[in-house]
Formats: sequence, C-alpha cells, structure tokens
Amino acid sequence: MTSIWKWSGSLALAGGLFLAGNDPGLAQDAAAAPKGVPIDSQYVFNTLLFLIAGFLVMWMAAGFAMLEAGMVRSKNVSMQCTKNIALFAIAGIMYWALGYNVMYDGVDGGFIGSLTPKSIPEPGSDPGSYSAASDWFFQMVFCATAASIVSGTIAERIKLWPFLIFVAVLTSLIYPIQGAWKWGAGWLASGADTSWIKTFAGAEFQDFAGSTLVHSTGGWAALVGALLLGARAGKYGPNGQINPMPGSNMPLATLGTFILWLGWFGFNGGSQLAMGTLEDASAVSRIFMNTNLAAAGGVVVAIMLNQLFYGKVDLTMALNGALAGLVAITAEPLTPSPLWSLIIGGLGGAIVVFAVPLLDKLKIDDVVGAIPVHLLAGIWGTLAVPLTNDGATFTAQIVGIVSIGLFVSVASLVVWLLLKMTMGLRPSVEMETGGLDIGEIGLEAYPEFGSGSQRI
Amino acid sequence: MTSIWKWSGSLALAGGLFLAGNDPGLAQDAAAAPKGVPIDSQYVFNTLLFLIAGFLVMWMAAGFAMLEAGMVRSKNVSMQCTKNIALFAIAGIMYWALGYNVMYDGVDGGFIGSLTPKSIPEPGSDPGSYSAASDWFFQMVFCATAASIVSGTIAERIKLWPFLIFVAVLTSLIYPIQGAWKWGAGWLASGADTSWIKTFAGAEFQDFAGSTLVHSTGGWAALVGALLLGARAGKYGPNGQINPMPGSNMPLATLGTFILWLGWFGFNGGSQLAMGTLEDASAVSRIFMNTNLAAAGGVVVAIMLNQLFYGKVDLTMALNGALAGLVAITAEPLTPSPLWSLIIGGLGGAIVVFAVPLLDKLKIDDVVGAIPVHLLAGIWGTLAVPLTNDGATFTAQIVGIVSIGLFVSVASLVVWLLLKMTMGLRPSVEMETGGLDIGEIGLEAYPEFGSGSQRI
Amino acid sequence: MTSIWKWSGSLALAGGLFLAGNDPGLAQDAAAAPKGVPIDSQYVFNTLLFLIAGFLVMWMAAGFAMLEAGMVRSKNVSMQCTKNIALFAIAGIMYWALGYNVMYDGVDGGFIGSLTPKSIPEPGSDPGSYSAASDWFFQMVFCATAASIVSGTIAERIKLWPFLIFVAVLTSLIYPIQGAWKWGAGWLASGADTSWIKTFAGAEFQDFAGSTLVHSTGGWAALVGALLLGARAGKYGPNGQINPMPGSNMPLATLGTFILWLGWFGFNGGSQLAMGTLEDASAVSRIFMNTNLAAAGGVVVAIMLNQLFYGKVDLTMALNGALAGLVAITAEPLTPSPLWSLIIGGLGGAIVVFAVPLLDKLKIDDVVGAIPVHLLAGIWGTLAVPLTNDGATFTAQIVGIVSIGLFVSVASLVVWLLLKMTMGLRPSVEMETGGLDIGEIGLEAYPEFGSGSQRI
Repeated sequence: MTSIWKWSGSLALAGGLFLAGNDPGLAQDAAAAPKGVPIDSQYVFNTLLFLIAGFLVMWMAAGFAMLEAGMVRSKNVSMQCTKNIALFAIAGIMYWALGYNVMYDGVDGGFIGSLTPKSIPEPGSDPGSYSAASDWFFQMVFCATAASIVSGTIAERIKLWPFLIFVAVLTSLIYPIQGAWKWGAGWLASGADTSWIKTFAGAEFQDFAGSTLVHSTGGWAALVGALLLGARAGKYGPNGQINPMPGSNMPLATLGTFILWLGWFGFNGGSQLAMGTLEDASAVSRIFMNTNLAAAGGVVVAIMLNQLFYGKVDLTMALNGALAGLVAITAEPLTPSPLWSLIIGGLGGAIVVFAVPLLDKLKIDDVVGAIPVHLLAGIWGTLAVPLTNDGATFTAQIVGIVSIGLFVSVASLVVWLLLKMTMGLRPSVEMETGGLDIGEIGLEAYPEFGSGSQRI
Repeated sequence: MTSIWKWSGSLALAGGLFLAGNDPGLAQDAAAAPKGVPIDSQYVFNTLLFLIAGFLVMWMAAGFAMLEAGMVRSKNVSMQCTKNIALFAIAGIMYWALGYNVMYDGVDGGFIGSLTPKSIPEPGSDPGSYSAASDWFFQMVFCATAASIVSGTIAERIKLWPFLIFVAVLTSLIYPIQGAWKWGAGWLASGADTSWIKTFAGAEFQDFAGSTLVHSTGGWAALVGALLLGARAGKYGPNGQINPMPGSNMPLATLGTFILWLGWFGFNGGSQLAMGTLEDASAVSRIFMNTNLAAAGGVVVAIMLNQLFYGKVDLTMALNGALAGLVAITAEPLTPSPLWSLIIGGLGGAIVVFAVPLLDKLKIDDVVGAIPVHLLAGIWGTLAVPLTNDGATFTAQIVGIVSIGLFVSVASLVVWLLLKMTMGLRPSVEMETGGLDIGEIGLEAYPEFGSGSQRI
Repeated sequence: MTSIWKWSGSLALAGGLFLAGNDPGLAQDAAAAPKGVPIDSQYVFNTLLFLIAGFLVMWMAAGFAMLEAGMVRSKNVSMQCTKNIALFAIAGIMYWALGYNVMYDGVDGGFIGSLTPKSIPEPGSDPGSYSAASDWFFQMVFCATAASIVSGTIAERIKLWPFLIFVAVLTSLIYPIQGAWKWGAGWLASGADTSWIKTFAGAEFQDFAGSTLVHSTGGWAALVGALLLGARAGKYGPNGQINPMPGSNMPLATLGTFILWLGWFGFNGGSQLAMGTLEDASAVSRIFMNTNLAAAGGVVVAIMLNQLFYGKVDLTMALNGALAGLVAITAEPLTPSPLWSLIIGGLGGAIVVFAVPLLDKLKIDDVVGAIPVHLLAGIWGTLAVPLTNDGATFTAQIVGIVSIGLFVSVASLVVWLLLKMTMGLRPSVEMETGGLDIGEIGLEAYPEFGSGSQRI
C-alpha cells in the first residue's frame, strides 16, 4: 500500500496512512478525513497566486500613474504619464538584469546578493514549490511600486532623464539591497538564534508585505529628492504663505486610488507567498479582509477628522486616507483581528490629515502626499506589528526602520547629488513655468481644454 | 488498500475504489477513469473563486465611481468621487460590524440573523469548504454594490453626511435583512417542503446573483431618495420642459461601464459559490458566457432602438443598455441557453430605452439612469427566471420582488425622513447652483478646464 | 494496489506506481517524489486559466476604448466610446452565432469550419480537459481584440453603422476563417508530416498568441479601411504639410496602454491553454516574464530613439512602444530567453518610432498608430519566431503572414467597398468638421471643457 502524495506539512499523517494500508479497516477510517493538497497541485496554486497577485500589483503602476496625473497641474500631466510608464519599464528591466539576484541570490545573513541577471530554468524544471518566473514577476512589481512612490512627490519640477536614471539605480541596487536584508534572508532576518538581530533585538525584523521595505523605501528616496530639489516655483511665498496648486483632474486621482486599493489585495495577499494549502488559502483570505478594513478605516478617520477640523471633506484627504490605511496594514496584514486592522488603518488615515499640512509648514513640497502616505504611515505600520504579532519586538522593528531609512536616504542622496552635479535635476524656471509637457515631452495632455486663464 | 481522498460527491466511487484495492485488475480499470478533486484542493479552489470574484466586484466600486463622475456636471464631480470612495469604506466596516451576521448568522427560515460583528476563525481552522474570510469579502463587496447604486440616482443634490449615514444603515441593516430572507436561508428560501413559500408559491424565491437582492434593493432605496429629494434645481421647467443636464465626461462614463462589465463576471460567476469540482468550474464558465451575451444583447438592442426612434445613437443609452443586460441576467445566469441570455439581456436594454424618458416625464430625476438599469431591469430579470429554470415559479418570484421592494422602500423612507428631519438632506439652492464641490468638498474636480460659460 | 489518478502526461510513472503497489518498500520510495496533478483538478486549473486570462483580455476592450478616446480630438470622443462598447458587444454575439464554429468546428486541415452557432454542453458534461464555455469566452475576447484594433486607425471619419457592420463581418467570418487556418488546425497547422505546409515550408506556421492571427489581422483590416476612407479632413495640406491633430486626453491614452499591458498577461499567458500541470504553470509564468520584458524593451527603445532623433520624448511614442513590444512578443512568448524577449520587444519599439512618421509621409492617416503597432510589429514578431523556436522556419512564417495578410486585406476590401457603395462610409464634411459626437451621437464628450477656440 502506498501513500502516493506528499502531504502538505503532514508527514506524520502520510506515515499513518502508509501503515494503515496494511489494515483496510483503519484505512477506511482514514478515508473519511484525508487532508492535504497534492504537492504538484500546490505548485500550481502557489504559482497562480504569484501570477494573480503579480498582475494586481502590476496594475498599481497604472494606479500611481492616474493618481499622479490627477494631482499635478495640467501642464505637467503628459510628463507625469511618461515618467510612470517609463519607470515601470525600467524597473522591469533592471530587476531582471540585477535587482532580483542582488536581493535574493546568496544573501545568507549578509547585506547583498549577487550582481548577476536572473536566469529562469526551463519550464517544468523549476525546483521548489512554485515557478521561478512567477516569483520573479511578483517581486518585480513590488520593486516597481517603490519607484512609483518616488515619482509623485517630486513631480512638476524634475527633468525626465535624471529621474529615469535614478529609477534605474533604485530598482537595480538601492531597493534590492535593503530588500535583501529582510526578504532576501539577510542580517535583519537571520533565522539563527545566535544572529545579531535576535541577540540584540529579541526577534528578527518583521515586515510582511513591505510597509518599510517598499513604501518607506520609496518614501525616503522621495523625501531626499524633494529636499534636494526644493519646492515648485511659486509654491511657498516669501512671507510664509502657501499657495495651493490644486490637481487638475480629481476623478483620475480617484480612479488611481481605487486601482491601488484593488492592487493591494495582490500586494498583501500575494505576500503570503503560497496558497496551496488550506492554511495558506485561509491566510490569504484573512489578509484580504484585514487589508480592506484598514483601507476603510483610513478613509473614515480621514474624512471625520477633516470635517471636524476644517468643516469640509477634502477628497484628496479621503483618497490619501485610504492609501495610508493600506500602507499601515502592509507590515502585518495577517495577525491582526478585524478590529485591530480597522484601528491600524484608521491611525494611518489620521497621520495623513495631520502630516500633510505639517509638511507644507516645513516647506517640503510633496505634490501627491506620498511622504505622509508611504513614509510616515509605513513607519507607523511597521511599529504596530508587535501589537498583534508575538514574534516581533519594538526594538527589532526600530532597528529595521532606522537601518533601512538611513541606507536608502544616504544612497539616494548620493545618486541624486551625482545626477545634480552631472546632468542637473531641475528644468529651467521658464520650462517649469511653461510646463514640462511642452518643454520636455512636446505634447500637451489636454490641448483643447481650458482657456488657459485659470492655469498657474 | 485505501481510498485516500474524499471524492467530491461520489462516496460510491470512493467505496468502489476501496474494494478494488484488493484486486489489482479491477483497480487498474478504475484508474482509467478516476474522478473528483481532492477535498482540500476544493477548499482552495472555492476560496480562490471568492477572492478573485470578490476583487472583481470590489473593482465595480471604481466602475460606479467613474460612471457617476462622468454623468454628473463638472461642479459636482469631486463630491461624487468622495461619496463613492467613502461609501465603499463604510460598507466594508458596517458589513463587518453588523451586516454579515444580520444576513447569515442563524436566520433559519426567519427574517433576520444576529446583531453581532463577523468574527473570523484562525487561518486553517475554518470549517466548511472555503475560507470564512473569503466568503465575508465576497459578500461584503455585494453589499457595497447596493450602496453604489443609490449614489448615482440622487447625485448633485444631496449633502455628503446624510448620504453617508444612509449608506451606513443600508449596509448594516436594510440590505442584510432582505438578503437574509433569501441568501441567509430565511423565509423566502426555506428548504422545507412545508415552508410557507413552497406551500404558497410552489417554489422558493430564486435570485442567483442578486437582480432583486442587490440591484433592485439599491434601486428602491434610490427611488425613494429621489422622490423625497426632488429633482435638481432647474431640471424640470415650469411649463413641463425637461432641461438636459449632460454629463461632463463621457469617456469616464464609458470606462465605468467597462469596469462594471468586467466586474460582473465576478458578480455572477462568483455566485456559483464554488469551483472546486468539474461541475462547478463548468457552471462558472457558462455563467461567464451567458453574462457576456446578455450585456452584448443589451447594448445592441439599445443602440438599434435608439437609431430607430431617435435617429441617433446616444452613448449613454449604449452604456446603460449594457448594464441593464447585465442586471437582467443576474437573477439566473446559469440555466439559460446562450440564445435565451441574449434575449433576456436584450430586453433589459429595451427597458432602458423606454424607461429613461418615461422617468423624465414623471419628473423623477435619476442622474445616471440607475432606476431603469438596476430597479426595472432587475425586476425583469427576476421575473424571467421561471422561463429557463424549472425550480422557479412566477408566484414565488413576484412574492420575492414585492416583499423585498416593500421592505426596502419603507425602511429607506423611514431613514431618509429621519435624516431629513434632523440634519436635512438637501444643500441650499446657492450651494447646489454653485456646485457641491466648492460647497462641501472645497475642491474643484477640474480647476483648469473650461471657461465656465458653458456650465449650467 | 491502485494508481487512482491519471497522471499528467506520465503514464509510465503511473504504471510504476501501480507495480510498486505490491511492494510497500518500493511504494515508500515512490511516495517521496510523487508527481502530477489529479485529472479533475487539471480541468479546474485549465478552466480557471481561460476565465482569468479571458477577463484580462476582455479588459483590453476598455484599454482600446481609453487609448482611442484619448488619442482622438474631443469632438469625436463620444463616437469613439460608442464604437468601442458596441464592437465588443457585436463581437460577443457574432463569435457565438458563427465565429467560434467557423474557426474551430471540423476545420481538419482545411480552410473553414462550420457555419453554426456554438452550443455549450450542460455543466459537468464537457468532454476534454477544460470547460467548453471557458474556452469560448477566451477565444471570443481574442476576436474582439482584432475588431478593437480596426476602430483606432480609422477613427474620426467613419460613420457608426458601416463600421459596426464591418465589425460583424470581421468577427463572424474574416477573423474566424484565417484563425481556422492555424488555431483551428487548418492548412497552416496540419500536424501530418505529409501536409502541404510541412512539405513546402519545413514546419507548420507558428503564432503562439496571435501576432499575425489577431494583431496583423486587425492591422490589415484597418489599413485597407484607412486607404479606402482617405485621411481626416485637413490632415494633409495641399503642399505636403502634415497638420498635427493632437489627441485630446493623454492620461486616458496612458490608462488605456496600462490596461492593455495588464490584459496582455492574459492574452499571452492564457494562450498556453493549460495550467493544470507543473510544466504548464511554469510556462505561463515564463510567458508573463517575457511579455513584461518585451513591453519594457519597447518603451525604453522608443523613448531613447525619440530623445536621440527628436530631442524630446513623445508620450505617445512611449505608449506605442510598449504596445509594439507586446505585439512583437505575442507570436512566441515562451521560448525566448529574457534577453531575447527584451530584444524582440525593443525592436518592436524601434519600428514604431520609424513607421509613424513614414505613414504620414505616405499620407496614410492612422489616428492611433495601430498600423505600426499591430500590423508591422506583428509581422516582425512573427518573423522572429524561428530565432528562438526550433520548430519554426522563416518560410513557414512568411507563408502564414502573406496568406493571412492577403486574405484579410481582400476580404476587408470587399466588405468596405460593399459598404461604401450601399450606405457610404464617410460622414459629410460638415459633420466631420463639426465632430461626429454632435453629428451621429448627439452628445458631446466634454460639454463643459474648453472655450472651443483651440479646437480643430
């Protein structure tokens, strides 16, 4: 008698069945409650999760494009669209040429993997429990997300090519190196009990789907860029006044937010990395539920605080509230209860309401609010992990946040500075005033709309 | 010899294999035609269906947002976007806090479940054949759909907060209570042969994916709201003239319709509630096909009738034709043949062409046409079920339509009236004329477009 | 001892297990490495692939709608939206009424299948390894894609109804007939070694997902239409000048491109036609990766060449570069290495940069660039197959390209000519100048935007 399947995580059960095979009576009992998904079916399920979650996260690239196109002034919309499609293309190439292996190939408790392109085995000869190419695809779209975050903050005042070169470095080295530290099983994630992080912080650093690894990373790179670039011409007046520069297309910004919300089910759900067992499928489902509750909490808290403090409900606050809730739950979307998810996301929404005006007071010009949403809510979400996850400590979380923050900021600063010194980052004042669409793209986004008089 | 899998719906076969185990010859024969999907694989497939269909239906929230943003005038677009993102958030919270258990927990042939939040078992300890959280997610997005329907009809003339409070009541009580009657196994769906509905009507009420439970429910709530609110300022002149108030952005309305069409594959396909067997996977596929044919029929009939009666093809009629076809097939997307699906959907399209002008004659101001599309085509689709489904009777269908219609209308009326008496529903005429975007949101949707002169 | 599953493509292994059943020791060894997905699970996986890939390709219809709505002038946007939703509806009906069986029913090495509607077996009684309805759905959206391609090229100057009638013929006969030649196992794909194509060309014609069958087919039909219709009024001046007619909404065009990019994972990935085995799941994944790299290559090459030759980066070139990369990899997305995919897609992007101005010099007015993207990059991709696929020959590829190109062009010409002679193709100059939205649809796309003065 054979037990012809390798049972998922249940060798004991398989053994039991094997023995039972000599005794039809026992076997009959066992037949009433067999468990487990056949191993090759698991492979297909896991691969399917990577592909489905991957295309949902890929779709987030469109979400960022629409959000940003809606939030910039009409004279810079074509530029913003160009940046977004180009950054997704560049991320896809660089994460194949370098990024994936830098992040995952032989990190082994250290700081960096190998500087080689990702090669893909012939179909069917993949080792492991999923297809290598599906994993690459899933990881690649995460990398692209980090790049998308940068493009929003520094919109309307950076030239195309230096931005794209920054993206190339971000997606081939900066993002993958810090990613290696945790997801590549580097020094922040060493499994050994004697590892530095466990000895010092009592646990490894925990970041389920990337509140820090993806969102804060994008946020730090954006913040450094914004500081170095300075604000858009005319944004902050000489006497401290803040000149509003309203986005040109609110339904597009809304569409972008809905796309991101949708994509986030892939972002967080796919980060379970498997759905070939009952446990994994159940976990992915719980992540969907928690992710949605956190986003909902972010919206509701943001609009309530808005109404309370300003007497109106600013749509962009509602949108960013949703996104901040999503970023906040990303560090741990599995262990919180529904109520905890609501609270974690709600506090993300609160961060946005208070941080957006604060940044303006500090004269940090963040066109789409990416710093509050991705950096600050990302830090909050990462810090919140120990509240619901016994395997996490505040010390370890802070070590992760600070080390990654420092690395990404310094590395980004170096790259931004090199670009500034060589090709320059900022277009001329005339070009900026006239709009980057005409200056750099040669194509207006809405050539027939508007009399021009309302345009800033 | 053991039969180690619990065969889907085929204990006899499993038993046969078990016996065959003692006889290799027999077993070899059996091996040629084994059937069935292992039980845990079924769990994963079913859960996957809920998650995939769920995210498609979640995406419909964006579809409604875009459809409505395109169909309102530009001065109310930010408001419409705010409402749509906020209603989806509120639905997500209320359907966790109350709605789900009101609809599904212990209804047992009655009228209402329990007034408790939905709790989720630890991953892997879900009983049943799918993950509880995936089911919650799938049901939640249905509830949100009902709320989305309301927001379109009463657009451009209702204040934000009373609308959102109505949504909170709709998604926590009104929708779940009537949902309990059928999908929660309440009095409209009692399986017992001695139940009232079977005795009186010869069959239980049939509504596969919610022509009545979701679409008409949203439609009734919208109709009552529209009647109580009255028309937009200036819509109907003193001498009976009807002033067109064209939507501000047709490609957005088109995008919204395509999103809804896409999402409907999840709406109807997911309502099979399982795809872990050959039969279920085949049924889901057939539903996809029928759903598409009904939408296509709706479009083609609508544009042909438009050309015939008006000499032009109004894009909004084509869009609403698609939606009406989709709503009509929703009550029974599985049993009709392709040809029947085409006819059921096509008649949905015809309803739109005749009902839209009729509503205007009755001075019922339905901004997006949600009453013809969701209420009337929903009734049509529900009535059409007995044409193709032997398990349905016209009497039972009418009982369901009328009882749900009455309950939702009266409940909605009470809530709308309470809101009117307390906080008021309608903004001032000045605010309505100036646009809700400036009045309530403080943010124009398109600050740079238009000279303002063409605006109504 | 029984081997109770029919192993995927591994009867030898199944036999081994069967024999091993008499020897527990051997069986135990076999248990360590059992392979294969149970046959009914394969059915569900395959069906799921068709449904998921199908809804992604269905979503491409929205992508074309947005791309085209963004690329035409605002006076023709409602018309373009109407065409796109109507063509998808008509394709869905005609491909059921005729197209599917023309393409697949009993072609048997010949030129055409049967002129009958597609009937669907009762759920669960489908023969084969997937649900018949899921296959129909998947094939239908491919057919609709071909129609979508046509609508872009000949935009802004064709009347609604002749266009829709052309779509009806294209989707019921023209597309299915040429499709039958290859995918319907017709004369271009005969498996027999003595078949004409193998004897003459050394291999059957290879077109994995339709560079030629879908994209060039749409492109040829569009080209013939464009030649017959002539250019838009005022596009080409009397002294050879080319008057730019910029698209009215660049973020919509960008959105459309992102939608298409997303949908292409379904287009190419689904064309593996199965994912119920480890090998197939792995192949689908590799196709995702290659598809993304080709699109990325198309973007990067297009923007680099743009910068080099024109000193600016035209957004529409970046968008069309992505699409050309996608079209190019479509003929063979599985066998190329990642690097080859990048190169094949990159050359697609180069084709766009050079072919768009060339068409203008030839006074072929292609509003969205569909001829470079779908026809020329489709030919390139089809020719590139032998570079990475040993089973292909250049001769066979050329035979396929030419025979399909000739058939589609001649058939399209006949239909276009018949339509021209009967109902006429082109609106009056007054209607064209005033815009088709007012002339044929009776509804402006953006009634409140613009002063009108900038409009051409």
